[in-house]
Amino acid sequence: MKKLINAPAAVLADALKGVAAAHPDLSVDFANRVVSRGSVTQGKVALISGGGSGHEPLHSGFVGLGMLDAACAGEIFTSPTPDQMLAAAQTVSAGAGVLYIVKNYTGDVLNFEMAAELAEAEGIAVKTVLVADDVAVEDSTWTAGRRGVGTTVLVEKIAGAAAEAGADLEAVHAIATRVSENGRSMGVALTSATLPAVGKPSFDLPEDEIEMGVGIHGEPGRKRVPLVPAAEIAEELVSSILADFDFTGAPVIAMLSGLGGTPLIELYAMYGDVAALLEQRGVTVERALVGDYITSLDMAGCSITLLRADEELLRLWDAPVSTAALRWGV
Amino acid sequence: MKKLINAPAAVLADALKGVAAAHPDLSVDFANRVVSRGSVTQGKVALISGGGSGHEPLHSGFVGLGMLDAACAGEIFTSPTPDQMLAAAQTVSAGAGVLYIVKNYTGDVLNFEMAAELAEAEGIAVKTVLVADDVAVEDSTWTAGRRGVGTTVLVEKIAGAAAEAGADLEAVHAIATRVSENGRSMGVALTSATLPAVGKPSFDLPEDEIEMGVGIHGEPGRKRVPLVPAAEIAEELVSSILADFDFTGAPVIAMLSGLGGTPLIELYAMYGDVAALLEQRGVTVERALVGDYITSLDMAGCSITLLRADEELLRLWDAPVSTAALRWGV
Repeated sequence: MKKLINAPAAVLADALKGVAAAHPDLSVDFANRVVSRGSVTQGKVALISGGGSGHEPLHSGFVGLGMLDAACAGEIFTSPTPDQMLAAAQTVSAGAGVLYIVKNYTGDVLNFEMAAELAEAEGIAVKTVLVADDVAVEDSTWTAGRRGVGTTVLVEKIAGAAAEAGADLEAVHAIATRVSENGRSMGVALTSATLPAVGKPSFDLPEDEIEMGVGIHGEPGRKRVPLVPAAEIAEELVSSILADFDFTGAPVIAMLSGLGGTPLIELYAMYGDVAALLEQRGVTVERALVGDYITSLDMAGCSITLLRADEELLRLWDAPVSTAALRWGV
Repeated sequence: MKKLINAPAAVLADALKGVAAAHPDLSVDFANRVVSRGSVTQGKVALISGGGSGHEPLHSGFVGLGMLDAACAGEIFTSPTPDQMLAAAQTVSAGAGVLYIVKNYTGDVLNFEMAAELAEAEGIAVKTVLVADDVAVEDSTWTAGRRGVGTTVLVEKIAGAAAEAGADLEAVHAIATRVSENGRSMGVALTSATLPAVGKPSFDLPEDEIEMGVGIHGEPGRKRVPLVPAAEIAEELVSSILADFDFTGAPVIAMLSGLGGTPLIELYAMYGDVAALLEQRGVTVERALVGDYITSLDMAGCSITLLRADEELLRLWDAPVSTAALRWGV
């Protein structure tokens, strides 16, 4: 294993030091492993997400104006604890309640539930939105139901804009739910990720095969197939997503996210094929993101996320955002 | 070789299709492989860069308001031709002259020189700034003198802001030269990149060694050393850069760029060590960028770039920019 780290057990703590050093506008609580905005806006609904580390920029890269108020970082591929999630709520709660944005993994779901109870006991109103957008499989290694993946980024951006504009907890929760329900994703792995603490690829994938529908922790997907040209991979991913949900007749926000180990030139090449397919199928992409947004350490591959939007969601998408990984309008 | 591509020879053309699809505000000239802004501002100095592909987001990801007017894409790790560079000048020249921003590789230098002559012959005033900031080695596989690497990103941003603010060609060239002369970089490779057309790693690096001072095409660096913790790698890179140039007593802009295959969590961990070292050595980092900005396909590793700035350069750094890969203030 060749990694740019000091020790497998130190990666997260070291990375948090780097986040603090690179982004003086953010506040890092090293004890609780919570990255939050440096200041709180009284009366604004606070958005909090979190999960296992190794998917960066998700979630800490999305903390800032117009998006998250705080992100809780678990160890790599490991849920953060309820204590961390409670600490985050205590730090950024500004009298208007907290929205927890939770990817559908059993540990995350249970821990955020417990944190919500603890926060409510302290008088902080909490609502939760669950993201379960991965069409690849029902149930998976650490998930009952569908896994939560790329739509999480879109929930954080769009609900974040609604909160910034002054919407109350019920309204922010309603917007987040609408995004969650109207987003679908699917990914493909060309290689496994290597966890620092494990030191070798976490699953074996032969040199001539790919995992179609892989999870962001390397959970098995739909099938292993021979390595085929990008256009065929795009066809499989796009067809699977469109078979699950109707994306015609509405403006669509599309995200093609690398999984961490695939160069940007390949992601753009892949997006060219995806965009052409979507056009053929009558899907109108109004906004597109191409790059590393939800990753799996150094895994090679990508995921596609589509959101059936509308004028309001597009307007919230376009609203100013200022985070380490997503920034415009400000 | 496992790549998300259709065919090795098609990667660049396919990626340009993806750029066009994802960024409708950009204009893609597929015949000349030039990515440019969708509109020209009369009387503004036009900034053009370019080079071999495989270093994305450099350069096409930096085309837009406040940065480049056009980027010429060569084949992977291969200089674009004078014809491409001339076509770019013809496309974005707006009556105030063109600045060519050139990384110091023999092919790039010769071809941009020829393009400048061709453009001048058509009545387009051209000035050129050469970036040769890599402290690792004098001369290298494709370079006489030092290689041009990360400072290129800072030249494009800062000179781009000056041009956007209405500076004339002489002033923009002077700013670009100041940035080029006051920036220094050095990188480290943990693995080789794999070129699509070659299909295997372009150099052999044993599982327990790293290449200190590697070039962005895998050119040899200063030495091969055993894989050591990130803090020791940071120490070697920072010491080498600081031994070459005095970065104390002025505000510094720091960039830690991944080389393409290293996850963001490792880059932040590395940046934590770099920031601590710089503070110990009396260097004051006023602005920091951490992420993939100048890459080498799927190479694992990173590079550090430091710029000795001043109030004017910081102000130009902070000015609005709106490109695919760098965006703020607008």
